Amino acid sequence: MSVLPVLQTRIGYSFTRPELLQQALTHRSFSGTNNERLEFLGDSVLNFIIAHQLFNLFPDLPEGDLSRLRAKLVKEASLAEISTSLHLGDALKLGEGELKSAGWRRPSILADALEAIVGAVYLDGGFGAAEKVVALLYRETLTSIDPKVIDKDAKSQLQEYLQSKKMDLPEYQVVTIEGEAHAQTFTVQCLIKKLKLSTTGVGTSRRVAEQQAAQLAMEKIQS
Amino acid sequence: MSVLPVLQTRIGYSFTRPELLQQALTHRSFSGTNNERLEFLGDSVLNFIIAHQLFNLFPDLPEGDLSRLRAKLVKEASLAEISTSLHLGDALKLGEGELKSAGWRRPSILADALEAIVGAVYLDGGFGAAEKVVALLYRETLTSIDPKVIDKDAKSQLQEYLQSKKMDLPEYQVVTIEGEAHAQTFTVQCLIKKLKLSTTGVGTSRRVAEQQAAQLAMEKIQS
Repeated sequence: MSVLPVLQTRIGYSFTRPELLQQALTHRSFSGTNNERLEFLGDSVLNFIIAHQLFNLFPDLPEGDLSRLRAKLVKEASLAEISTSLHLGDALKLGEGELKSAGWRRPSILADALEAIVGAVYLDGGFGAAEKVVALLYRETLTSIDPKVIDKDAKSQLQEYLQSKKMDLPEYQVVTIEGEAHAQTFTVQCLIKKLKLSTTGVGTSRRVAEQQAAQLAMEKIQS
Repeated sequence: MSVLPVLQTRIGYSFTRPELLQQALTHRSFSGTNNERLEFLGDSVLNFIIAHQLFNLFPDLPEGDLSRLRAKLVKEASLAEISTSLHLGDALKLGEGELKSAGWRRPSILADALEAIVGAVYLDGGFGAAEKVVALLYRETLTSIDPKVIDKDAKSQLQEYLQSKKMDLPEYQVVTIEGEAHAQTFTVQCLIKKLKLSTTGVGTSRRVAEQQAAQLAMEKIQS
């Protein structure tokens, strides 16, 4: 139990009902009274808080970019990273099987527990408390976001990957432009000849469509 | 503009800044100042409010069932249905192209506008206001949920479909049971001989795994 006070200090919140925190740290392999329902609640609280923060931080960013940013911030790997910085693994309650297989290091278990903690804070202290905890956990991440870089990701990643394999750069080609002037839809093809790979992206700008095509190409390559 | 007061009465909320409601009703085909960012925000507010309501309404329901229930309540078809009951189509601002193709009836446009309205209410009146509006919009749906029926859906649907085609019922077979006693994972196969179709579901109970397998079978049949 002695890890709980330390963890509460780290997340910047002191529980009125510490049993909620205890439950948030309990994996289903340990007990029937576990963190799964809290994770369900916490996931939606977290998604909403991050969406709201991004909405306020970037008043000019279109919806697609906001969605991509949020997805990046709440994906399993990002959550697991925060969990690791909180040493959450030390506080988890796991069943024997999970202990043997080092479950305290598994990203999915760490991410779920973090979401459950956000859910537990919300139940214990209300929405304001949850907001403060999330703001603290994401302080560095949120202040370091450069919205101009958001869309570079997929294309840059693809380019770097192809260069590392000594392959030619992908070719992007606009296939169609549809719709009225202020509401156009671009369809772009990304072609990687060497891999005989072609993907198609759609978006409200050529840039967005290219990114989507690049993203799909990366996914095909990695699958 | 005269539809706005009626709409505000229907959603049970009167805007301090009616321009936010106006923006929530503006499709991107009509103007650069449209409802896309509000939709991003509203989607996450709505998801959270519904998650919280379900969490409170069904204290014994496991996470998987809560997730399925929420997905059902916030899916495009459900949102579009609520929009239709609000006569939202009459209040939408659409570009010429969308007007010609009867965009005011398209489920995706209707669903997006409803999410945007929830986002606009949240910005205008805060979280409590958004909660009240969502509670009103979902009043009938939320009170008519029978959690015992949640999981029946996919299996019942599949059975009804096969019966309507005079086919034999699907065979469900447990393939593996893994994990410790209180945290088992069941893998179940659903076999429809006549269609040479086999799908596999995974879940924390045999029942849940069967439902997933049935769901996948339905999706394959319908695709």
